[in-house]
Amino acid sequence: MTPLPGTLVVGQSGGPTAVINASLAGVIQEAHRHAAVTGIYGMRHGIEGLLAGDLIDLGAEPPDAVELLKRTPSAALGSGRYKLSDDDYARLLGILRRYDVRYFCYIGGNDSADTSHRLAALAAGERYELRVVGIPKTVDNDLVATDHCPGYPSVARWLALSVRDAGLDTEAIGVVDTVKIVETMGRDTGWITAATALARTHDGAAPHLIYLPERPLRRATFLADVARVHRALGHVVIAVCEGQKDEHGRYLSASTAAVDVDRFGHPQLGGAAAVLCAWVSGELGLKARFDKPGTIQRVGAALASPVDVEEAWRVGQAAVAHAAAGASGQMVILEREGNAPYRSRTALVPLEQVANRIRPVPDEFIAAAGNDVTPAFVEYAAPLLGGPLPPYARLRGQAVPPRH
Amino acid sequence: MTPLPGTLVVGQSGGPTAVINASLAGVIQEAHRHAAVTGIYGMRHGIEGLLAGDLIDLGAEPPDAVELLKRTPSAALGSGRYKLSDDDYARLLGILRRYDVRYFCYIGGNDSADTSHRLAALAAGERYELRVVGIPKTVDNDLVATDHCPGYPSVARWLALSVRDAGLDTEAIGVVDTVKIVETMGRDTGWITAATALARTHDGAAPHLIYLPERPLRRATFLADVARVHRALGHVVIAVCEGQKDEHGRYLSASTAAVDVDRFGHPQLGGAAAVLCAWVSGELGLKARFDKPGTIQRVGAALASPVDVEEAWRVGQAAVAHAAAGASGQMVILEREGNAPYRSRTALVPLEQVANRIRPVPDEFIAAAGNDVTPAFVEYAAPLLGGPLPPYARLRGQAVPPRH
Repeated sequence: MTPLPGTLVVGQSGGPTAVINASLAGVIQEAHRHAAVTGIYGMRHGIEGLLAGDLIDLGAEPPDAVELLKRTPSAALGSGRYKLSDDDYARLLGILRRYDVRYFCYIGGNDSADTSHRLAALAAGERYELRVVGIPKTVDNDLVATDHCPGYPSVARWLALSVRDAGLDTEAIGVVDTVKIVETMGRDTGWITAATALARTHDGAAPHLIYLPERPLRRATFLADVARVHRALGHVVIAVCEGQKDEHGRYLSASTAAVDVDRFGHPQLGGAAAVLCAWVSGELGLKARFDKPGTIQRVGAALASPVDVEEAWRVGQAAVAHAAAGASGQMVILEREGNAPYRSRTALVPLEQVANRIRPVPDEFIAAAGNDVTPAFVEYAAPLLGGPLPPYARLRGQAVPPRH
Repeated sequence: MTPLPGTLVVGQSGGPTAVINASLAGVIQEAHRHAAVTGIYGMRHGIEGLLAGDLIDLGAEPPDAVELLKRTPSAALGSGRYKLSDDDYARLLGILRRYDVRYFCYIGGNDSADTSHRLAALAAGERYELRVVGIPKTVDNDLVATDHCPGYPSVARWLALSVRDAGLDTEAIGVVDTVKIVETMGRDTGWITAATALARTHDGAAPHLIYLPERPLRRATFLADVARVHRALGHVVIAVCEGQKDEHGRYLSASTAAVDVDRFGHPQLGGAAAVLCAWVSGELGLKARFDKPGTIQRVGAALASPVDVEEAWRVGQAAVAHAAAGASGQMVILEREGNAPYRSRTALVPLEQVANRIRPVPDEFIAAAGNDVTPAFVEYAAPLLGGPLPPYARLRGQAVPPRH
């Protein structure tokens, strides 16, 4: 294929993560290797930046700053959630021509894949040669086609480490603070909540109950679950998703406040754990509290998975390499090659296949009772952490014989 | 002083931390060095374990498990918050005699110091030679006499790292999620909330507003603060304490307390941050969300301060060394010897001086406007992190010239 001279634009979209900048580093570093790429431009705050001509010259960034992006959380370009209008699409083509853009890389989730897909179709329709390659990113892990999404391994590791510690806390002080509910992120799928299962490194370890939004949470069943674990252990640690729904299909959080809706029509959630705490204290008379780490779990770079950092870089690098080689209308995905040792490779799928679709946690990863994950899920997710959790002391606890 | 043969009991009290087990390791390892200590017993769940004869033989724990306690969060003995009755005190002396206890080490806050102090006084009154030495522990950092409390440097480091990342998140996605409120622990003092200031590693960095419970939070002033930062930066990150009170002296969370205690299972709305989010969205029309890391900040061992781990071990070790040398009725404290490099030494103060007293954040650490800390606070707290936060990339962001 003849080289296509032109500039490359890259943007970051949706919720920032611990590793979305590693993908950006991969894009920039690979772009520097291709003579046909005559400029490397970053869109500020996603596609809105392109529309506004708010672009920064990434080609002019010092190599050491680009290298450091691999370990820098959040979205260095700024992120956004702008939904393009038909008008915007019509304008975009003129803007692309003006900046001589031939390579378009958009790092994001299924909304971004839709944006990229439509832009590719528009350019093709206008016979403007534009190579559009999507780069997957979402802590939600809900993109189809890919084994997993960059960002997910790091939120999984963050939760594995944090819920293990929070679980030991409840184990120690459960005589006072008996029930702890950890509310995780996750819009409509339970991948993030499920990852709390990776916190279990000893018998009886937290979390003792894990509810995924793929199953309704029934109040009576939930309370029976909590009572049962409390009888057995004297304390209970529960993981629940911010997007958990009840048996009537309503968000648990919906009972606390009017549900806010963002510009894509996604409800903005919060409050599931608070509702469950009220149920537990009101019905079971147990003291309940919740931890809601919120955005900290999403961007906490100090606990990022080394697998994730490397793969996030690699999907960015691969996107540019594929675009330079002629690919368009595609998204980079990860395919797992093995678990021992863990290995993955990149591949491409049509953006259309990814756009606006979500991948729920499959049935084989959800325990039949709907209050836990299966060993198959742990087998899937554990290798993504990049190694075992550090060992902790467990005392033998030999009893001192009573004296009278 | 003639050696006093007898057993040593040690207990952990109050909220578990990332490093309270390091203090336990210090106690056990030092106790093994003294021939007069004829047994090393751990109270399960604090003083309640001693009352119930629920003791474990720490002398029988393998040395490698004891060593690993230094890096194991939560309270390995189990913790508690039991307040002794006069009856309990009367019974305790008999129990001490029965187990031949001559050394009593209690790791905790000012409640524990009170328990230890009363026990020491009781034993002295009965002419039973008991060497009681308290070991400081509280993330709240509110004990008097000591420079700081083991546990605090680690929660400070956890928040510095986490709020820095959460702040970058809002900086990147503030066009959508404009206001973020991080609710920290801390009931009546603002030491923990203040530590979020250590997250600032660049101009304009989060948190932009820090409210401490030492000052009332006035609704009108708060909203004006938020509006001002929003005008300047386009986004706002706020740190607030779970125990923050309003200008009427009421806990912010109290405005939802009526719902909280409702027996009909009506949901509680959450705490201080949820109330502030409602103010911001209701009055300023800005989208607001909150992160409430809860117990995860208290016990997150992966981000523990190396200074804290070492000092927590050292106060445990010193307690036993001092008790073996004849001290009683004392608590170990930390005295700062220097900041460059940071150095501290242990010393003793009477338990009576610490018992039931709290140390608020002093005026010189609180900005006059009541919405931030002072540089003097940062100078005090930063050395406790054990080193600078890891560097992050900051893009130069050279604008691409507009094309027409």
